[in-house]
Formats: sequence, structure tokens, C-alpha cells
Amino acid sequence: MASEPPVIDIHTHIYPSSYISLLRSRTTVPYLLYPFEKGASPRLIILPSDDDSSLPPESRGRPIDPSYTDIGVKLKFMSNHHITASVISLANPWLDFLSPKEGPKWARMINDELEFTCSRDQGKLWAFATLPLSASPLDIVTEVDRLQTLPHIRGIILGTTGLGNGLDDPNLDSIWAALEEKQLPIFLHPHYGLPSSLYGPRASEYGHVLPLSLGFPMETTIAFTRMWLSGVFDRYPKLKLLIAHSGGTIPFLAGRIDSCVKHERHFPEHSNEYGEKSRGPERSLDRVLFDNIWLDAVVYSETGVRAAVDKVSYKKVLFGTDHPFFPPLEGGAEKWASVETNFDAVTGGQDNAGSRAILGGNAIELLGLEINPGEAENSPVEGL
Amino acid sequence: MASEPPVIDIHTHIYPSSYISLLRSRTTVPYLLYPFEKGASPRLIILPSDDDSSLPPESRGRPIDPSYTDIGVKLKFMSNHHITASVISLANPWLDFLSPKEGPKWARMINDELEFTCSRDQGKLWAFATLPLSASPLDIVTEVDRLQTLPHIRGIILGTTGLGNGLDDPNLDSIWAALEEKQLPIFLHPHYGLPSSLYGPRASEYGHVLPLSLGFPMETTIAFTRMWLSGVFDRYPKLKLLIAHSGGTIPFLAGRIDSCVKHERHFPEHSNEYGEKSRGPERSLDRVLFDNIWLDAVVYSETGVRAAVDKVSYKKVLFGTDHPFFPPLEGGAEKWASVETNFDAVTGGQDNAGSRAILGGNAIELLGLEINPGEAENSPVEGL
Repeated sequence: MASEPPVIDIHTHIYPSSYISLLRSRTTVPYLLYPFEKGASPRLIILPSDDDSSLPPESRGRPIDPSYTDIGVKLKFMSNHHITASVISLANPWLDFLSPKEGPKWARMINDELEFTCSRDQGKLWAFATLPLSASPLDIVTEVDRLQTLPHIRGIILGTTGLGNGLDDPNLDSIWAALEEKQLPIFLHPHYGLPSSLYGPRASEYGHVLPLSLGFPMETTIAFTRMWLSGVFDRYPKLKLLIAHSGGTIPFLAGRIDSCVKHERHFPEHSNEYGEKSRGPERSLDRVLFDNIWLDAVVYSETGVRAAVDKVSYKKVLFGTDHPFFPPLEGGAEKWASVETNFDAVTGGQDNAGSRAILGGNAIELLGLEINPGEAENSPVEGL
Repeated sequence: MASEPPVIDIHTHIYPSSYISLLRSRTTVPYLLYPFEKGASPRLIILPSDDDSSLPPESRGRPIDPSYTDIGVKLKFMSNHHITASVISLANPWLDFLSPKEGPKWARMINDELEFTCSRDQGKLWAFATLPLSASPLDIVTEVDRLQTLPHIRGIILGTTGLGNGLDDPNLDSIWAALEEKQLPIFLHPHYGLPSSLYGPRASEYGHVLPLSLGFPMETTIAFTRMWLSGVFDRYPKLKLLIAHSGGTIPFLAGRIDSCVKHERHFPEHSNEYGEKSRGPERSLDRVLFDNIWLDAVVYSETGVRAAVDKVSYKKVLFGTDHPFFPPLEGGAEKWASVETNFDAVTGGQDNAGSRAILGGNAIELLGLEINPGEAENSPVEGL
């Protein structure tokens, strides 16, 4: 059988057993709640709004079934969807909530477990590590340095709060410097969303639709824009940032952001790289998008993938699934609609070269993955 | 000279003299502040954050020069940019802040003034009216009915708060019914943005960039999504909604919104118009975008215009300028970069038929404008 081009999933989460033991030991958000019912999955109480003891346990937070914790379930999911390899990452809220002292210990334990998990399935699994963001910048940089000893770690996952004050905080500089020096890509991922007051008095009627579909991408967009405006990419021009959910809304809003910056009297005028008068960061938004930004293709539409490709090039958009989130609501389906929607959004709107690059080639290049060609035999990409 | 295709600006604001007199009479936000300096423009204190008496008057709010108030300045701007006709609208915050009793009187006064202004420049000016949203639904519907007597009023402009609880408020139903019956398009426009806490401790260093470039489009997106989720378009399937700034971020996020709805257990399953099992509103997001939604083209990028066209069709995207906002920071420029960016985003990314439709044809069709062909002689659209 001719080998087919690989499909790499760079947006796929897991709660390793060390993280589950951490959550089980806690009684404040985030923590695990065990319902009384026999056979019921534990519930992850992840947001303050989940932590409502007036509700029965089975209505609070979300169930954590083995798809969240068992790598075997993920490998089966990969096989069902003809995914050659996955770059797994701890799901939110990572270690943001720990005390400064606890952070480094748990980060080491979780990153070691991710490394061990990946090492058992050579050529199929790599990982983004987790940083102990509640610790001191020095301790965080120490963990970044240590990641070099873990060969399956190919980047780090990062929330939007940084050390607590967002990603435009100058106290992050030593961390950016370490990540730039090691050329470890940052996978920027949302967790906090927007204040629920924005969703109005009827929000509960819409389930999780507003926070997940709007809050998440808006949080990501604000975090990146603050990072760019504060000059992070001027100071660290080789930083590599892979942004979840196709950048939140960045590809669509980039023109508006750029126009607002150019019309903002608050920014002093300077000459840009073309010798034109400009305002805002030294390196323009277009330049940073083209040089420093990668986007996943988890945007559920051809329109979204096209906009992402427009802004960062088809060589910098990467397929992902967001597994184990968004499973089929009816049990038993082998193929997940959420995965197929994202797959079709890539292949339906891009030519063959673009589809190959986005489905796998770009991840291999960005993260230096060594794929066994035999692993890719079952690629579903007809004619590529 | 052969007549050229018309260019219609459907997103262009004014503060009529009646509105200025209202703002001048007030001492709480929004109000006008008159600095002591000779020749200085009055300042519009529009947001609570502008209302900081520790700052000198010339640093508070924004200056209201004649471009905001003098229709002659707008007509000159139109001529400089080869704009055939404009559909003017009151700028935010409209009448949202009035007491219930005051609303209807001011709405009548402002709408009558808009009508009078347009009537003096036949074939060049039309308007979106303002509704007294602080009044009772009955009083609001009375004003909607009265608009039929004002021949230059071709729709209404609306903020995102409705009667105070957002656009998913069932108390708005009689107003949607009246607007649907009269086939008066609603121009949905942001004002409130997002809570400033989301912009972090360094927000003031970025001027107005974050609230304008991100807060505005996110506010709009949330407002529309709540409206759709609450079933407004199921109950009023002929409602016409024209959304500012190319829908905020709706074209980019539509796929994600749709996927989240289909994976939301909270919504009962039903059969959609194709007989498929679905969840959420009876009329799907794609159906509503295609049938009920028009988008302006004020998105400052070809990427944005293409995404808008993808989602609602090129027959439902309409050129706009957002005049008098985003003027050149250096005085004296006849051509505004903000306008040219939006113009080029249309003509650069669309074929001739698409450009003609977006620049003028779609506005003429949606709003029933009677354009004098002679007025279009100076169209800058070469070869169209």
C-alpha cells in the first residue's frame, strides 16, 4: 500500500493521572467531585459557576470519563479518525491555580508523565508541556530549561493570564527569552472566557454555547493583541506562537486592529520596516502574523480556515480536533462530527498542497516530528 | 460622460443639532464639555471612564468638531471620496440613556431633523432613524409606525442593549413585529464594548485600540448570537438585520457557534428544515445568515470582506466608511486612509460584479434608494 500523507492532531488534550490526583486532593475550584451513583463518572468542577452545592452532583461541572484520562482511548480515537500522530497537551486550567511553592513540583511530575506516555508510542505521540505559572519567573525558566531533557516535549501550552496580569506583563520577559532561545513554540489556549454578565439574564438557557463559542475565542484574541501591543514580538522577534481555535478571531479582526492602531494618536509615530510612517509596535501586525504566528485549524468552517490561511499563509495553519471535547451527543458513533467538520473545512477549501500542509506537513515542520511513514497508511485524504 | 456605478455609504454617523442640544443640557454621561481654550472643540464625554474630572478638559472624551455635526462637511467628504449617496445615522449612544418619558419626544425631534436634512439633498442622503428605547414597547412601536411618514427614513439604528436586557429579551417582540411588518431594516451597532478589566493593568498605554478594535465587534457578536439563540428569527422570519463592522466577528465564528449548538445537550433535539436531526433554534444559523442578515463592509481587510461574502453572499454586503470616525491624524489629507482601506478591501478581493454590488447596488436594493444616475459620474471604480 502506498504511504499516504500523515494527519497530525496538534490540538488534543489529556488529564494525566498525576493531574487527576492533584484535582482529587483539592476541595476548591478546580477539583473533582465523585457522585454517589454507581458507575457515574467523576465531575470536574472547573469554573466558580460550576461550584454550586445547591445543584445535584450530576448537574455540576462536566463528567470526566476515560476519554479525558486514558491514552488508550485517545489512540483508539486517532485510529478511528485516521490520525497518524497527536501532540497532546494538558487541558485547562493547567496549573494556574496553584500556590507559588506547589507549581514547580507538579509541573515536573506532569511533564515527566507526558514524556513517559509519549515514549511508549514512538512516532504516534508528542506533547506540549505545562509551566508552573504561579511560581517565580526563575522557577518557570528552570522548568523550560529542564524540558530539553524530555525528547517528546515539542512546545508548551499557555493560558492567557501569564503570571496573573496577562501576556503583556513585562515580568514574563525572561520566560519569553527562554522559549525563544530554545525555539519552543507556545500553544496559546483560552480558559477564562468573558464575564458571564455579558451573556445576559437568559444565559443559562443557552447551556455552554456562549462561553465556549464566543468567550473562548474573544479571550484568546484579547490576550494576543495585548501581547503584540506591548512589544513582546519586538523584543523577542523569533518567538513562535501557535494560537488555538484559529487565533480566536484574529484573522477576521486583524485589519480592524491594524487600522485602529494607525489612527491612535496615543502611539508616537515611527518609521516602519518599509520606511513608511506608522504607529504602534515596531513590527507591524501583518509582519508578526506572517513571521511569529501559527494557527490551528479548529474553526469549524471553510470560511475560517481560508481567513487563517490568508493571514499567516497555508504553511502555518495546523489541523487539530480539540479531543476529547465535543464528542457526539448520541453514543456509539465511531466518527465524531466535530472532527469531520474541521477536517472537511481544510480539504473543502484548500488545494491538495494546502490540505497536505495543514493536515500534517506543517506540524511536522514546526515541531520537528519524526513520523514513521507506515503509520500514515490509513490516511483518509483521497488523492493527496 | 458615461454614468458610473454608484457608491453608497451606509455606515456614516452624525450628531444632529437637536441631539447636540440634548447633550449640552446634560451634566451626566453622555454630555458635552466646553473647554476654556478659545477655538477648542467641545468634548463629548461618552463613557463613564471619560468622566474623570481629575483630567484637564482637553484630555477627556473626544473632540466634537464640525465633521460630527455639519452635514455640509459630510457632503464635502462624500464628494472627496466619490460617494454618490449616504445613509446617515445618529452616532452612539443614541437615546439609550434617557428617562422613559423623555425618549419619545427626543426620538421624534431627531428623526424629523434627519428627514429634513435628507430632504434638502435629494438623491444624496437617506437616514436610519433612532428609537426611544428607554420608553415602553408601545411608545417605541408608535415611533416605528410614525416613520412611515418620513420618506427618507429607510431603517432604524439599534444598540445592543434593547430595553436594557439585551436583544434576546421577549419584551422586544412587539418591536420586532412592527419592524418586520414595515420591512424596516435594523442597523445593529455597538457602543458598550466589553468590561475594561479584560484589557488589563496596561490598557491605558494602548489608547482606544482595545475597546474599539476588539470590544466593539465582540459586543456586536454576542448581541446577535443571543438574539438568534432566543428564537427571534424563528418568530420573525422576515426581519432584516444589517450588522455593523461586517458582523463584528460573526462570519469567522459562525462555524464554531454552529458546532457548539449542535453539541449542546441542553437544547432538545428537533428536525431541521432538511429533515435532519438538529439542536438550537428552528432556523439554523446558516439559514438566518443567508435570509435575514446583511453585513457592512467596514472590516478593513480583503480577508474580512471575503469571510462576510462567504457567509451572507455578495448580494448582502454593503460598503460603509464609519465617517466621521477614524479621520487622518495628520490634518489636510483630502482622502482618508480608513475609507481607502475599506474601499480597496472590496475592490481588491471581489470580481467586478461583486464590487459593484457591495459598493452600491446592494444598498440601493435593500433600502430602495432612488439614485440620480448623474450623481454617480465621479465614481472611482475604474472599469466597472
